[in-house]
Amino acid sequence: MRTQVAIVGGGPAGLLLSHLLHLHGIGSVVLERRSQEYVQQRVRAGVLEQGTVDLLRDVGLGERMLREGEVHRGVYLQFDDERQHIPFQELTGRAITVYGQQEVVKDLNERRRRDGGQVLFEVSNVAVHDVATDRPFVRFTFDGVDHELHADFIAGCDGFHGVCRDAIPAGVRTIYERVYPFGWLGILATVGPSSDELIYANHASGFALHSMRSATLSRFYLQCAPDEPRDAWPDDRIWTELRTRLGTPGWTLHEGPIIDKVITAIRSFVAEPLRHGRLFLAGDSAHIVPPTGAKGLNLAVSDVDKLAEAIADFYRTGSATGLDCYSAACLQRVWRVQHFSWWMTSLTHHFGGPNAAFERRLQRSQFDYLRSSTAAATTLAENYVGLPTR
Amino acid sequence: MRTQVAIVGGGPAGLLLSHLLHLHGIGSVVLERRSQEYVQQRVRAGVLEQGTVDLLRDVGLGERMLREGEVHRGVYLQFDDERQHIPFQELTGRAITVYGQQEVVKDLNERRRRDGGQVLFEVSNVAVHDVATDRPFVRFTFDGVDHELHADFIAGCDGFHGVCRDAIPAGVRTIYERVYPFGWLGILATVGPSSDELIYANHASGFALHSMRSATLSRFYLQCAPDEPRDAWPDDRIWTELRTRLGTPGWTLHEGPIIDKVITAIRSFVAEPLRHGRLFLAGDSAHIVPPTGAKGLNLAVSDVDKLAEAIADFYRTGSATGLDCYSAACLQRVWRVQHFSWWMTSLTHHFGGPNAAFERRLQRSQFDYLRSSTAAATTLAENYVGLPTR
Repeated sequence: MRTQVAIVGGGPAGLLLSHLLHLHGIGSVVLERRSQEYVQQRVRAGVLEQGTVDLLRDVGLGERMLREGEVHRGVYLQFDDERQHIPFQELTGRAITVYGQQEVVKDLNERRRRDGGQVLFEVSNVAVHDVATDRPFVRFTFDGVDHELHADFIAGCDGFHGVCRDAIPAGVRTIYERVYPFGWLGILATVGPSSDELIYANHASGFALHSMRSATLSRFYLQCAPDEPRDAWPDDRIWTELRTRLGTPGWTLHEGPIIDKVITAIRSFVAEPLRHGRLFLAGDSAHIVPPTGAKGLNLAVSDVDKLAEAIADFYRTGSATGLDCYSAACLQRVWRVQHFSWWMTSLTHHFGGPNAAFERRLQRSQFDYLRSSTAAATTLAENYVGLPTR
Repeated sequence: MRTQVAIVGGGPAGLLLSHLLHLHGIGSVVLERRSQEYVQQRVRAGVLEQGTVDLLRDVGLGERMLREGEVHRGVYLQFDDERQHIPFQELTGRAITVYGQQEVVKDLNERRRRDGGQVLFEVSNVAVHDVATDRPFVRFTFDGVDHELHADFIAGCDGFHGVCRDAIPAGVRTIYERVYPFGWLGILATVGPSSDELIYANHASGFALHSMRSATLSRFYLQCAPDEPRDAWPDDRIWTELRTRLGTPGWTLHEGPIIDKVITAIRSFVAEPLRHGRLFLAGDSAHIVPPTGAKGLNLAVSDVDKLAEAIADFYRTGSATGLDCYSAACLQRVWRVQHFSWWMTSLTHHFGGPNAAFERRLQRSQFDYLRSSTAAATTLAENYVGLPTR
């Protein structure tokens, strides 16, 4: 088999890259380990930056998103039982859209299918080869048969646990990592949201986040121990903690059946550079952010947007400048987003340790400062809605 | 002996309080452990917030400060050899004044002397008594004789190592403290400044700060190990490190004789509350900030300004409201300043540890963000020039 760009990973990064390349007339094959059903159903992020929305719309993927996505013009930030509003629209002229990642993936798969895109699901034994030469290829098994996919370029969109990152030799790459002393318990409940916008709460008992997916589906997160078993969180305990951490005088939390619970480790991770020879990493394969800033998906979109432009430029003009600048251009945004995600996390979570009481006072002070300073609130808002992509 | 307000400590906090009370017609006695020469010569902070300058001017202490102090309309922030300017005046309409703390102390002593103020130097064995009653008093030895000073109120302006803080019972107070894994080597050199404004530098070798005192006196600081002996820093090593950490292409560091070197531990500290009965803490006796934000003196001025008003209000109207609110009113600003001082420190210093490489990338990202975002630069500027005092 041969294609122009072999794309390892059929999540949002890989599928969007395939679509963007197609718009430039560039062929690609997407290789995904999981089934289509799995990829389209796993619950992930749900907040799209203004720039992500604009990009998806501009490349013909906005129809359902613009119809079904909910535009939010701010978020709530809460300290104990005091809730304040950060008005994104007022502070930055921009907004966010709540639209589940799996919906983006469904739209991408549907569009790729209509355009005759090659997306192979349930491939196994994926390995990338000869990436430092100009004849890289991917070996994989599909439907019981071993294949070699030869390409001009390989895009590693295979997530944090994928194989592509390790094809960059340890001697030329640097790993930056920070693991946090807590996890997130993610909860999906079939009940309408209790708030018109997201609520980020720093409570004495720990962090809580009220997010939403639709008029009948709410998403919640609770700070928990990183190694806690899911069984430690029966439904009763979850609702009690949500009521406690999100509670304010006069506000009511709507409760309903919990249909999903999952505990996630919280991590900051960057592998530099994002390129080695003909291999280009994009999205979670190169970087992971704590989910507090809702940046993972948006950062992946920004990466593949740059990568598609660079590859298209190469085929159009023969110039490798875009490809050569790809890693540095991505990293500028990656580290901005890493900082913001760390900051949102440090503002709202309990880290424990000897400085815990001191740090909670600093959190309180920042909460008050965000209320009193337009500049401070603007830094939160402009990072949350997303700094300019290009 | 009897007075209305017994003031323990004759540094800037105690002397200014004494002066402010005098303007309200309220008597006080200041008790200082050191000699007048020592207090007036010890090198301390040198940056006055706009609000501090305005207050000192408004209470008749501005004559020499306005003549000799240097108004700075910004500072430089440097990462490795890239230097950027944060234009305070442009971003906030306010500025800072470089005028040494010991000059403020000289002005205060001179003014207290002219006004017939009672300032006793070289007192010893100071102990405060009965602060929870309405007949508090201070015992001390002066000129070989033991005294009791009875007062309506006692002001603890005796610094971090003073005795007043410990007169608040452990059961009713909370200590917040963070010690940093580095110290500051402070250097005074008889050479004109090499910059028109302060330079804060985050270099791969550690933090450096170029400050100044006059046209012929420069002040430098270098991040060092917290327990390093001064002997580890011969002059040659100091100039080499300053050249390295502060260097940018085309810029020259002027060198001259070093006349003072001192290593200081870096600490964040708050004792809550600032009041117990008739005892009121102000300045360093209640809180210490890392010096990176140049806030220590300014925070002390803000405290005593509030305390003088509260005491004056009590004598004028009989109302204790101001006294009752004193601690909470101070703490609002104390924690804002604690956060800013911690942030300036975390932006510019190396903390070491397992996250060091990750943290330096976050520092770099913040440096870039301060350059590209007006909101971000404004948060630095408005905190540095000082948020409104009242």
